[in-house]
Amino acid sequence: MRLLDPFNINHLKKSGVGELPGSLNYTGTHKKVEVTLEVLAYGKDGCQRYLLRDIDELQIEDKKYWINVTGLHDIELIRKIGEKFQVHLLDLEDVVHVSQRSKIEIREGYLFSIFKMVYLKEELVQHEHVSMVLADKVLISFQEIAGNVFDGVKEHLVQGNGRIRAMPIDYLFYSLLDALTDQYFLIINSFASAFNELEVKVLEENLSNTDEVYRLRKELLYLMSVIGPIREAIQNFTMGESDYFSHGIIPYYADLMDHLKQISDSVKSYREMTDSLYAMQMAKVSTDMNKTIMTLTVFSTIFIPLSFLAGVFGMNFKYFPGMDYRNAIHIFTAVCVAIAAGMLSYFKLRKW
Amino acid sequence: MRLLDPFNINHLKKSGVGELPGSLNYTGTHKKVEVTLEVLAYGKDGCQRYLLRDIDELQIEDKKYWINVTGLHDIELIRKIGEKFQVHLLDLEDVVHVSQRSKIEIREGYLFSIFKMVYLKEELVQHEHVSMVLADKVLISFQEIAGNVFDGVKEHLVQGNGRIRAMPIDYLFYSLLDALTDQYFLIINSFASAFNELEVKVLEENLSNTDEVYRLRKELLYLMSVIGPIREAIQNFTMGESDYFSHGIIPYYADLMDHLKQISDSVKSYREMTDSLYAMQMAKVSTDMNKTIMTLTVFSTIFIPLSFLAGVFGMNFKYFPGMDYRNAIHIFTAVCVAIAAGMLSYFKLRKW
Amino acid sequence: MRLLDPFNINHLKKSGVGELPGSLNYTGTHKKVEVTLEVLAYGKDGCQRYLLRDIDELQIEDKKYWINVTGLHDIELIRKIGEKFQVHLLDLEDVVHVSQRSKIEIREGYLFSIFKMVYLKEELVQHEHVSMVLADKVLISFQEIAGNVFDGVKEHLVQGNGRIRAMPIDYLFYSLLDALTDQYFLIINSFASAFNELEVKVLEENLSNTDEVYRLRKELLYLMSVIGPIREAIQNFTMGESDYFSHGIIPYYADLMDHLKQISDSVKSYREMTDSLYAMQMAKVSTDMNKTIMTLTVFSTIFIPLSFLAGVFGMNFKYFPGMDYRNAIHIFTAVCVAIAAGMLSYFKLRKW
Amino acid sequence: MRLLDPFNINHLKKSGVGELPGSLNYTGTHKKVEVTLEVLAYGKDGCQRYLLRDIDELQIEDKKYWINVTGLHDIELIRKIGEKFQVHLLDLEDVVHVSQRSKIEIREGYLFSIFKMVYLKEELVQHEHVSMVLADKVLISFQEIAGNVFDGVKEHLVQGNGRIRAMPIDYLFYSLLDALTDQYFLIINSFASAFNELEVKVLEENLSNTDEVYRLRKELLYLMSVIGPIREAIQNFTMGESDYFSHGIIPYYADLMDHLKQISDSVKSYREMTDSLYAMQMAKVSTDMNKTIMTLTVFSTIFIPLSFLAGVFGMNFKYFPGMDYRNAIHIFTAVCVAIAAGMLSYFKLRKW
Amino acid sequence: MRLLDPFNINHLKKSGVGELPGSLNYTGTHKKVEVTLEVLAYGKDGCQRYLLRDIDELQIEDKKYWINVTGLHDIELIRKIGEKFQVHLLDLEDVVHVSQRSKIEIREGYLFSIFKMVYLKEELVQHEHVSMVLADKVLISFQEIAGNVFDGVKEHLVQGNGRIRAMPIDYLFYSLLDALTDQYFLIINSFASAFNELEVKVLEENLSNTDEVYRLRKELLYLMSVIGPIREAIQNFTMGESDYFSHGIIPYYADLMDHLKQISDSVKSYREMTDSLYAMQMAKVSTDMNKTIMTLTVFSTIFIPLSFLAGVFGMNFKYFPGMDYRNAIHIFTAVCVAIAAGMLSYFKLRKW
Ligand SMILES: [Mg+2]
Ligand SMILES: [Mg+2]
Ligand SMILES: [Mg+2]
Ligand SMILES: [Mg+2]
Ligand SMILES: [Mg+2]
Ligand SMILES: [Mg+2]
Ligand SMILES: [Mg+2]
Ligand SMILES: [Mg+2]
Ligand SMILES: [Mg+2]
Ligand SMILES: [Mg+2]
Ligand SMILES: [Mg+2]
Ligand SMILES: [Mg+2]
Ligand SMILES: [Mg+2]
Ligand SMILES: [Mg+2]
Ligand SMILES: [Mg+2]
Ligand SMILES: [Mg+2]
Ligand SMILES: [Mg+2]
Ligand SMILES: [Mg+2]
Ligand SMILES: [Mg+2]
Ligand SMILES: [Mg+2]
Ligand SMILES: [Mg+2]
Ligand SMILES: [Mg+2]
Ligand SMILES: [Mg+2]
Ligand SMILES: [Mg+2]
Ligand SMILES: [Mg+2]
Ligand SMILES: [Mg+2]
Ligand SMILES: [Mg+2]
Ligand SMILES: [Mg+2]
Ligand SMILES: [Mg+2]
Ligand SMILES: [Mg+2]
Ligand SMILES: [Mg+2]
Repeated sequence: MRLLDPFNINHLKKSGVGELPGSLNYTGTHKKVEVTLEVLAYGKDGCQRYLLRDIDELQIEDKKYWINVTGLHDIELIRKIGEKFQVHLLDLEDVVHVSQRSKIEIREGYLFSIFKMVYLKEELVQHEHVSMVLADKVLISFQEIAGNVFDGVKEHLVQGNGRIRAMPIDYLFYSLLDALTDQYFLIINSFASAFNELEVKVLEENLSNTDEVYRLRKELLYLMSVIGPIREAIQNFTMGESDYFSHGIIPYYADLMDHLKQISDSVKSYREMTDSLYAMQMAKVSTDMNKTIMTLTVFSTIFIPLSFLAGVFGMNFKYFPGMDYRNAIHIFTAVCVAIAAGMLSYFKLRKW
Repeated sequence: MRLLDPFNINHLKKSGVGELPGSLNYTGTHKKVEVTLEVLAYGKDGCQRYLLRDIDELQIEDKKYWINVTGLHDIELIRKIGEKFQVHLLDLEDVVHVSQRSKIEIREGYLFSIFKMVYLKEELVQHEHVSMVLADKVLISFQEIAGNVFDGVKEHLVQGNGRIRAMPIDYLFYSLLDALTDQYFLIINSFASAFNELEVKVLEENLSNTDEVYRLRKELLYLMSVIGPIREAIQNFTMGESDYFSHGIIPYYADLMDHLKQISDSVKSYREMTDSLYAMQMAKVSTDMNKTIMTLTVFSTIFIPLSFLAGVFGMNFKYFPGMDYRNAIHIFTAVCVAIAAGMLSYFKLRKW
Repeated sequence: MRLLDPFNINHLKKSGVGELPGSLNYTGTHKKVEVTLEVLAYGKDGCQRYLLRDIDELQIEDKKYWINVTGLHDIELIRKIGEKFQVHLLDLEDVVHVSQRSKIEIREGYLFSIFKMVYLKEELVQHEHVSMVLADKVLISFQEIAGNVFDGVKEHLVQGNGRIRAMPIDYLFYSLLDALTDQYFLIINSFASAFNELEVKVLEENLSNTDEVYRLRKELLYLMSVIGPIREAIQNFTMGESDYFSHGIIPYYADLMDHLKQISDSVKSYREMTDSLYAMQMAKVSTDMNKTIMTLTVFSTIFIPLSFLAGVFGMNFKYFPGMDYRNAIHIFTAVCVAIAAGMLSYFKLRKW
Repeated sequence: MRLLDPFNINHLKKSGVGELPGSLNYTGTHKKVEVTLEVLAYGKDGCQRYLLRDIDELQIEDKKYWINVTGLHDIELIRKIGEKFQVHLLDLEDVVHVSQRSKIEIREGYLFSIFKMVYLKEELVQHEHVSMVLADKVLISFQEIAGNVFDGVKEHLVQGNGRIRAMPIDYLFYSLLDALTDQYFLIINSFASAFNELEVKVLEENLSNTDEVYRLRKELLYLMSVIGPIREAIQNFTMGESDYFSHGIIPYYADLMDHLKQISDSVKSYREMTDSLYAMQMAKVSTDMNKTIMTLTVFSTIFIPLSFLAGVFGMNFKYFPGMDYRNAIHIFTAVCVAIAAGMLSYFKLRKW
Repeated sequence: MRLLDPFNINHLKKSGVGELPGSLNYTGTHKKVEVTLEVLAYGKDGCQRYLLRDIDELQIEDKKYWINVTGLHDIELIRKIGEKFQVHLLDLEDVVHVSQRSKIEIREGYLFSIFKMVYLKEELVQHEHVSMVLADKVLISFQEIAGNVFDGVKEHLVQGNGRIRAMPIDYLFYSLLDALTDQYFLIINSFASAFNELEVKVLEENLSNTDEVYRLRKELLYLMSVIGPIREAIQNFTMGESDYFSHGIIPYYADLMDHLKQISDSVKSYREMTDSLYAMQMAKVSTDMNKTIMTLTVFSTIFIPLSFLAGVFGMNFKYFPGMDYRNAIHIFTAVCVAIAAGMLSYFKLRKW
């Protein structure tokens, strides 16, 4: 699995350097996506799901409305939706500015939030910028491409599963956040597999190439930079007072917070473990080198004196005592064996 | 002792990705355990202990009730118990979701808590997910397998030891937490032994394999990830106001907090010590390598010039002055000894 | 690109060691800049832009005034402006003291702020000390050299773009801060390119020189030391109560805070990544060394015994059994090949 | 000096795993100490000092009483004292549980505190568990062995030095804490000496054994784990409101806090310095190794080609041009010298 | 420049271990200094400066008084001054206890503060313990030796520069703190020079000795341990409410705080840079070693096989095929060149 590829830790392209505040520029890459305007109008008794061609076609009756906008490059549409629901220009700017950090902010008349979808698609991680506007009976979600993260929630609405139709609209907001969060678990499980594989390689197969540990570290940094702001945003939101908390919703947000804490704990643990694995890998390189050098030293220190000795008796001095001694070669052999044995037992003694 | 084996730092399996909130799925591994429903009904004067076949059989009279459920895979039973005592579905979801973090939360009508049992059983560490629901006169505990962590408390109840029968039911809640916490001390003592053994190996036996230090680090990370949330949960709980604090209970919770602080201090100290031990181990590898290389260098630098000299006099030049000089070999020997002595004293001087 | 050159992490020259508090000394280097006093007087209906020779020439009517002072070495002018608008001497001291940290402070009758312009100019990073005094209908900005950071805002004012003319003067203050902040994005993008280039060099080209990583670290430290105080200042300002917040301005400051958080997150991420890159570079050096030593060891341990053997048969002993054996040289060759093969397969076995 | 020996960073033996809360078990090692019950009854006019055989003998009159219990293994005595002064069983449990962390807690009717005596005795560090119960006119101190830490305070009481007799009983409590704290200064000075000796060894004598740095780190960890909770306890105590603060006592507690801050600053500084010293020691090992390898390389690279050359001319080829050239040996010598000189100047050039 | 010499990070000598609280012992080293009692009596209209022989001679009229005591070893004088102005004995203890941390405390009737003078004198850093008592119209300063840090303030008072005579006495207190703080800038500039020199040595001259980096680290630790408490003290003081804040003084304290923040930022930056420099130095040692070993390996692996070959043909076997072949030597030479060239191109290929 390739967890994060292509990898780019911070899309810092700022929307409109030098432009007026509230200038809408889509800063993402999905500019060829078909823009769709899907509506799910629901109440206790049922749910209608239909597509609009324009936001003007929308008739607000005594129901709850989820307007799901896919594709962010149609600036005019975004502006029109913003005008219809009186969304601040600065918020619309963030809707189309894909490198904006996650946040939840309470405005006059609506709640505005930015999140990051991170999900697996064919073994590749996809990143998507998502915004949600939560007004009295309307929730508008904006996303870059059509995708399956929110599909479960749509299904529950259409089929009338659980309490989602009966509950106020902030329960829908919670459900979408819950769907987003569920994806992080999958990502982290996928990361965990990558880590475990690497651990086996390092521990058992003595892998000494650190490129993979480096890549894991970078991916963890990315996950932390995504999850940190989301956790912060939801924590601040649930700990504050809000008109957007209907009766009985608190345990649901608390449950969401539980998940985010767990994800964040997990990322931190893996970070420490990655550091630890790197340290051990370095230790293995040192220990291996030590062994290699020891082998070299043992061989060299045994044979270097012996070679010298052989060299000595290869000298062509005319008067060389003992050269014509009958047992010279046997004595030489014995001395060599003695020297070698002596060296070896010395090394044994020093526990090499 | 094998502290944590099989080791898996984060069970991140989320209960029901994409499912409705409040979907009950047992995410643990103990699916063949016999499900039992044990009741301890007690008051000042006595304590009855019996098994139920179904929760409907339970008759609530003017007593205090501890309902101890063993085995979490019978979802229907859990749901029925939840309905009888009006426990929120999201809480029941956490009861059977074994990777949920520890926490204490105050709900309408009851207090809900999640903890982790970590205990030694035949030299192996067992992990168990435990939840407790504390209502007016009823405490329900849920655990994965039958075990001995709560046995002491049962014994005190049945035999009427101490003040446990006389005190309100939150004292039972405290007693169970205290029993859980006691196990952590045993775990840490066991960890301490492992550390001390490793320290001896590194310091005295020059162990250079870092796999064990790596394993200890990982185990410490696991202990921190378990103890951190428990400490946080109990600290927040005892520092807040609560209807679940009967008169005179505060010193007991404070005592519990003392133990958790001590455990947490201890884990942090061992963490630092493990880092320190790793650093020293690396230092030893470097120092050893240094010594080996020095030995090699001393041998090489002494014999390399001598061998060259021997080689020179082994050359077959026809006109080689001094080759037929009578004392050539003696002079050669003397020069060799002088060179060797010179090198050695040079090394002594430089304190090698 | 040369990100920060000449690099000097802390201009600590203090204004007037031993002098009286409120002694004005320009501590920067731009002492030859032409001092200009530019005024933009604007209201809903229009904007006039003109230069003054002296501050006395300024006529305050029922408009909003932006007085933009370029060049800080004319102490007398600064003092005169200070007197006219009743700015505290300690603040004027900071206006001309270029190493003063960024801050926003609320004084009696005006708001005083210090910021740092950091912007790219011909591939070089420029640093500039900027102060702003925000009074009822007047904003005075002081900068060291004429430059283009504020030019966009001037253009919007003159051309009447957006809401800048219609909004109260604190919107102008916000707009200038926004223009400053936009430059940091450009700087960080430029830093990101430098990092990515270095990463490629280290990962793919095996660069082992750490000078560049060192330089990147230093540059990050500088960016952190600049951005930290600015973020802190704006955070404290927007979280407090102030007479300087007109109706509807809050979302703008919040947007600014978003940008600063993003910049600061980004700098922190790059810092971690730089540390990580350094660690990997070190790992590569170790691994390379290990391979080199292994090569040496393999060669040496194979040939050292063989050379010894050759030396032995080169000895001039008169009685040397086997020297006149016909197949001696073939046996010798076979033995050599056997030894070499044995050593090689031993190394293969140990996975060298 | 042997600072901490035998060294055991955390006595985690828990009092009574599985026992009832409030079970008294002495968990220390001083079980043969003679148990004494010393009373100092004092007032403005005098001070009587006597030993009791049993706590029942104590007559409370209109005086202030310091009851100093030495020896903690006589559980019955401790329980009796606890009953007489209505001390909570959980507190008595902590009195005899020597691994309990330092703390100050306010109970109904008394203040309960745990501290650690750490003092030098014959060049060895002693550790002692001390508890104090401060009631209206009575202070009870419990310690493990008779010792001299509190002797100064007793002397001042008996001799009537200073204001101790005239001040309320919380001044006695402060005086005992002050006496405890004074010992930490002595310990740290002793640690400082050890550090300075080690620094000299590393810097000047090139010590490369890291065992001592490891030991110092461990000792610092121990000191931090002792001082941290004490500082925390006293800080929380002095910053809170309390019935146990008589008029004029605050400056005394503040003075105590000053000392604890200084000790704690000092321990932190030494910790950083120890880390720094370790880093430098490692650097020295690397640098030394580098020098050794350089020596080896210089020798080898000079002589290896020369030896080869000598070997060449030692070959027994029948047709070997130049072998019978008269000046062959002189040319050979010249070539050798030239090669050696060339290599050496190359190394000089590369600044080896 | 020698920044800190002799260097002693923590003077922990405690005033009077075992003595009564409030025992006055001068713990510094300047015991031969002449004790002087200088008075500056000033008001709007003038300033008189004179020396007293005894504190009894002081006549308090309707003026502001700065009493500057030089020399702390005359305990009796200190006690007398303390009595005259009703200073608490514990504060007097701190006046003469030179290792007391910096602090500001509000007492009944006066403000008590401790600071550290750190200043350059003939290229050496001097350390001095300074205390100040600020009462209604009197400021008493105590310092160890006569020196020039406060001289500028005296001059301003005597010459009537600025607003110092006209302002209430807390402005004098501020002015003295400002004078102290100015010295820290000088110290840090001096440190910066030392750092820059070292950086050049490491980067350009390949210095591999880490002693100097170690010394810089230690000096930074010292500066942090001095500046930390001062910053803390002034921050707490200016953020609190106080009777000692006259009208208009706040901006002056804020200005002081600015300086302390800047100094403290600077020290932290240098600390990170020192760590970074150390890391790079270590990297250089590794890289150098790598190059040396590569050189050795290239030489050895080329000549070792060649030498073996030469050795083979130097063997004295009687039947040695090819020994009397006419071109043997030429073939041998060709083979040698081929082997060497092969090895070299292999190394080139692997980019050594
Ligand atoms: Mg903009
Ligand atoms: Mg982002
Ligand atoms: Mg999508
Ligand atoms: Mg969920
Ligand atoms: Mg849940
Ligand atoms: Mg680590
Ligand atoms: Mg779910
Ligand atoms: Mg968990
Ligand atoms: Mg169980
Ligand atoms: Mg307990
Ligand atoms: Mg206890
Ligand atoms: Mg460490
Ligand atoms: Mg000044
Ligand atoms: Mg600055
Ligand atoms: Mg400019
Ligand atoms: Mg902006
Ligand atoms: Mg925005
Ligand atoms: Mg790192
Ligand atoms: Mg217990
Ligand atoms: Mg302890
Ligand atoms: Mg004792
Ligand atoms: Mg004291
Ligand atoms: Mg004091
Ligand atoms: Mg360090
Ligand atoms: Mg004392
Ligand atoms: Mg100090
Ligand atoms: Mg002085
Ligand atoms: Mg100043
Ligand atoms: Mg200033
Ligand atoms: Mg470091
Ligand atoms: Mg660093």
